[in-house]
Amino acid sequence: MSHPHPELSAPAPLEKGALRVIPLGGLGEVGRNMTVFEYDDRLLIVDCGVLFPEDHHPGVDLILPDFAAIRDRLDKVEALVLTHGHEDHIGATPYLLRERGDIPLVGSELTLALLGSKLREHRLKETVHHVVREGDRISFGPFELEFVAVNHSIPDALAVVIRTGAGLVLHTGDFKMDQLPLDGRITDLRAFARLGEEGVDLFLTDSTNAEVPGFTTSEQNIGPVLDRVFHQSKQRLIVACFASHVHRVQQVLDAAVAHGRKVAYVGRSMVRNMQIAHDLGYLTVPPGVLVDAKDLAELPPERQVLVSTGSQGEPLSALSRIAQRNHHFVHIEEGDTVILASSLIPGNENAVYRVINGLARWGANVVHKGNALVHVSGHASAGELLYCYNIVKPRNVLPVHGEIRHMRANAELAKATGVPADRVVIAEDGVVVDLVDGVAKIAGKVECGYVFVDGSSIGDISEASMKDRRILGEEGFISVILVVDSVTGKVSGGPEIHARGFAEDDSTFDAIRQPIIDAIDQAIADGVDDSYQLQQTVRRVVGRWVNKTHRRRPMIIPVVVEA
Amino acid sequence: MSHPHPELSAPAPLEKGALRVIPLGGLGEVGRNMTVFEYDDRLLIVDCGVLFPEDHHPGVDLILPDFAAIRDRLDKVEALVLTHGHEDHIGATPYLLRERGDIPLVGSELTLALLGSKLREHRLKETVHHVVREGDRISFGPFELEFVAVNHSIPDALAVVIRTGAGLVLHTGDFKMDQLPLDGRITDLRAFARLGEEGVDLFLTDSTNAEVPGFTTSEQNIGPVLDRVFHQSKQRLIVACFASHVHRVQQVLDAAVAHGRKVAYVGRSMVRNMQIAHDLGYLTVPPGVLVDAKDLAELPPERQVLVSTGSQGEPLSALSRIAQRNHHFVHIEEGDTVILASSLIPGNENAVYRVINGLARWGANVVHKGNALVHVSGHASAGELLYCYNIVKPRNVLPVHGEIRHMRANAELAKATGVPADRVVIAEDGVVVDLVDGVAKIAGKVECGYVFVDGSSIGDISEASMKDRRILGEEGFISVILVVDSVTGKVSGGPEIHARGFAEDDSTFDAIRQPIIDAIDQAIADGVDDSYQLQQTVRRVVGRWVNKTHRRRPMIIPVVVEA
Repeated sequence: MSHPHPELSAPAPLEKGALRVIPLGGLGEVGRNMTVFEYDDRLLIVDCGVLFPEDHHPGVDLILPDFAAIRDRLDKVEALVLTHGHEDHIGATPYLLRERGDIPLVGSELTLALLGSKLREHRLKETVHHVVREGDRISFGPFELEFVAVNHSIPDALAVVIRTGAGLVLHTGDFKMDQLPLDGRITDLRAFARLGEEGVDLFLTDSTNAEVPGFTTSEQNIGPVLDRVFHQSKQRLIVACFASHVHRVQQVLDAAVAHGRKVAYVGRSMVRNMQIAHDLGYLTVPPGVLVDAKDLAELPPERQVLVSTGSQGEPLSALSRIAQRNHHFVHIEEGDTVILASSLIPGNENAVYRVINGLARWGANVVHKGNALVHVSGHASAGELLYCYNIVKPRNVLPVHGEIRHMRANAELAKATGVPADRVVIAEDGVVVDLVDGVAKIAGKVECGYVFVDGSSIGDISEASMKDRRILGEEGFISVILVVDSVTGKVSGGPEIHARGFAEDDSTFDAIRQPIIDAIDQAIADGVDDSYQLQQTVRRVVGRWVNKTHRRRPMIIPVVVEA
Repeated sequence: MSHPHPELSAPAPLEKGALRVIPLGGLGEVGRNMTVFEYDDRLLIVDCGVLFPEDHHPGVDLILPDFAAIRDRLDKVEALVLTHGHEDHIGATPYLLRERGDIPLVGSELTLALLGSKLREHRLKETVHHVVREGDRISFGPFELEFVAVNHSIPDALAVVIRTGAGLVLHTGDFKMDQLPLDGRITDLRAFARLGEEGVDLFLTDSTNAEVPGFTTSEQNIGPVLDRVFHQSKQRLIVACFASHVHRVQQVLDAAVAHGRKVAYVGRSMVRNMQIAHDLGYLTVPPGVLVDAKDLAELPPERQVLVSTGSQGEPLSALSRIAQRNHHFVHIEEGDTVILASSLIPGNENAVYRVINGLARWGANVVHKGNALVHVSGHASAGELLYCYNIVKPRNVLPVHGEIRHMRANAELAKATGVPADRVVIAEDGVVVDLVDGVAKIAGKVECGYVFVDGSSIGDISEASMKDRRILGEEGFISVILVVDSVTGKVSGGPEIHARGFAEDDSTFDAIRQPIIDAIDQAIADGVDDSYQLQQTVRRVVGRWVNKTHRRRPMIIPVVVEA
């Protein structure tokens, strides 16, 4: 099994007749999926998603794939294929289109509709769309594409086949193999089998659940659980789930009808996405069940169902505000029931449990995946992946979509079905894999950093800023300001000492004022007249003092101002 | 069911003959367990633990119970009972003893031995110890105590019975009901039954796992899994677990012997605790299996087992350093096996997965509770709690040890066994419960905040500092420094603008320098000569600009220095 090595250098130019795979996101993390394929000096991109930041990237809104490796070749991009409509697959598209607006966008009807509403929000209008469906074949330059139905936690997901002179690539996108999905649209294993018989030279497979033994439970199994909770509930019901989970919402609508309740959507993305899904026929809304949130509030509690965003504990979401009794019209009461029909994304636990505890404090009954089967994953577990490998019998495997632990587990599954270990390639973001003469091999490494979106800035915030934020957030800072007379070159004011996140009381610093003045006087007496050196003197004196007296390491910011 | 209400006021003085329960920690959170019992103007404390901070309390080392409510009555404390030796039950004891050093300490042999080593670290020596064991009875003032064996994830844990004129209280401490524990010391349900027949007026029960259906798996079931992993492993084995989990380490030692391997402890607390457990006979070390870490390194990899701390992803722990190939003598290699034989405490997921991914990156095989039965909980699940309630048949119930969601789930279990709803009291930290004439009722609320330990300071860091840290950590800061001539009262220097965690480039601020000067000139022309008002002017100008141009909200720190 090939491993990424830190010592990898830039890849050599691609051999004639070979295919290059350049992962720019999603390999080594769950999110910002983006893979570039290069053949005959032309490029094809599969997915362009965002990564939601965790604790290591405080204050950041979004993390984008790094376009640097293809920035000077964007004119060579034949198309961007979107496998499905989740944010981690489509969310960075507006940022790519800002760099080249006329890249043809290829995807299923629902995927492109969800993307379209996002592009409108970003005021991007003049885009080129190609709606495709399972079975369709379409070529872009040297890339002959074919699409295969896959089942996922959003309707209308597609795997993509890429045929070039270098061979056949099958990229699953995100998928699972629910054998009784709500819409009857199963992952097309007959197509996988046919492609396998033709010969799959490189198989890119979703690793997210490769560590999970067995099989992902069917979405259908949630229905009876919802039914039981609805049956037991005597008051208002609130169901939180992802705003794109059309089938989950479908089951809530059906349960509401069965129990004589009405439903209102809460949260902008929920309202918007369900409207799109309904308009396109992916969501069946029984007549009369859906009402406006304000009209719902007029009904008695036992007839109300709210379908809400905020299942990950997002602090500004409707559900968080409800948990704090801070929502403008939903007032949670003892005996209300809240269902978190959602996953718990690692890193969000504290936020989600804060919401659950908030709801429980008011006496609400909270049902969540920890105490009832109200969520199933959207990804194939180990058992399903084994089926895939045995049906496809790929010649080379590149696990995608996951942290390194997921990709390794996926690689082990491939090997267990007989794929030779040297044909299973583990590559992280930026590690380039070439398919040459039917063999996949690591060819080098391209630049691939984190690109942070923070407020209106894109890519201006660096890892150094992140590190500063982490120090400031853990330790606070102490700033020490000295004024130096620009004529005499002597200290004429200060030290003014300010601290935040460090201690409450400015008198804390009385003890260090004189030592700072003494140190500066000494430095000046020693002939130091450079303000950088004076600042370093201050930093040293204050740093030693604070470490000795407080056993802490706040950021120390000495400022010497001339006046 | 009684609920805490925000409008609760201070409780009236305690009625003659009544018992008061004052929870100072652990009710509403998992950690810093501490409950004070008051009878006839005398106090008894059960446990005095620490809480480990999560994301809402950045940079804090520890959180203590708030002693404020009893600070002026510490002379009335008859004893501090420690139910077992975990940090969340004993960890704050040194801080309490700093306030009154001669409080008698009561606990089992192992508990007091672990506490003793902690007190020595804090240089507290002259303490009063009473070693007790199951079945013992001992009185402190009006409190007649009896101890009952309970099973937990550390040996020698005790439940405590408190008899006063107000009735009989049974406090489980942390416990579960493993029916086949490694040391054969089961939770003594015969004693629970006998106490129930006598009549338990108030039952305080561990809520931690009340949301978990069914029964906690026996510790014994881990043995065969370890055996299989040891059997499959052809190289070095590293097992990480809690440093107090004597029985988990026992099973690792036994597996090592069975597979011809030697064991070394890594991590200061692991070495220290296992020495104590061994000295007191709680850990059986087969002859010759234990070696020094340096001697272990001399053996071939297939004969090495390291038992390490760091199972929660603590960044400075041995395991984290191993995962970064940054440890001074353990160099992780492809094919090594790492077992995380530990829980995953909510909030630690990112840190733990970073360690797992780090290990996987070097090719290690990582076994953890997500993919194998290498951990069982130390707490009674719902099924066990039902047994308890049915055996004890308590007259009043106060769920303890848990977040509000856990306490509510525990309350529901009590009610399901027939405890009347109005005899199940939900109280959070500081909410005082009185047992009067055999009925438990909320009596009011005492002060009970978070007390932060940060470096060498205890309680100096306030919630305001925490809020500052959260803002600094998410957004960074911009400081703007102006010098005002103390003679003329005019601006004579600046604005100097510095930012950290905000943007890389100081030229970002060129656009705002002149507007600041203009605004200050205008303010001075308008007669403003107060430096606070000038600072507010700067704050307003910079705040508006940064929000408009960057869509962010960094902390803005205007400083006006006189020189």
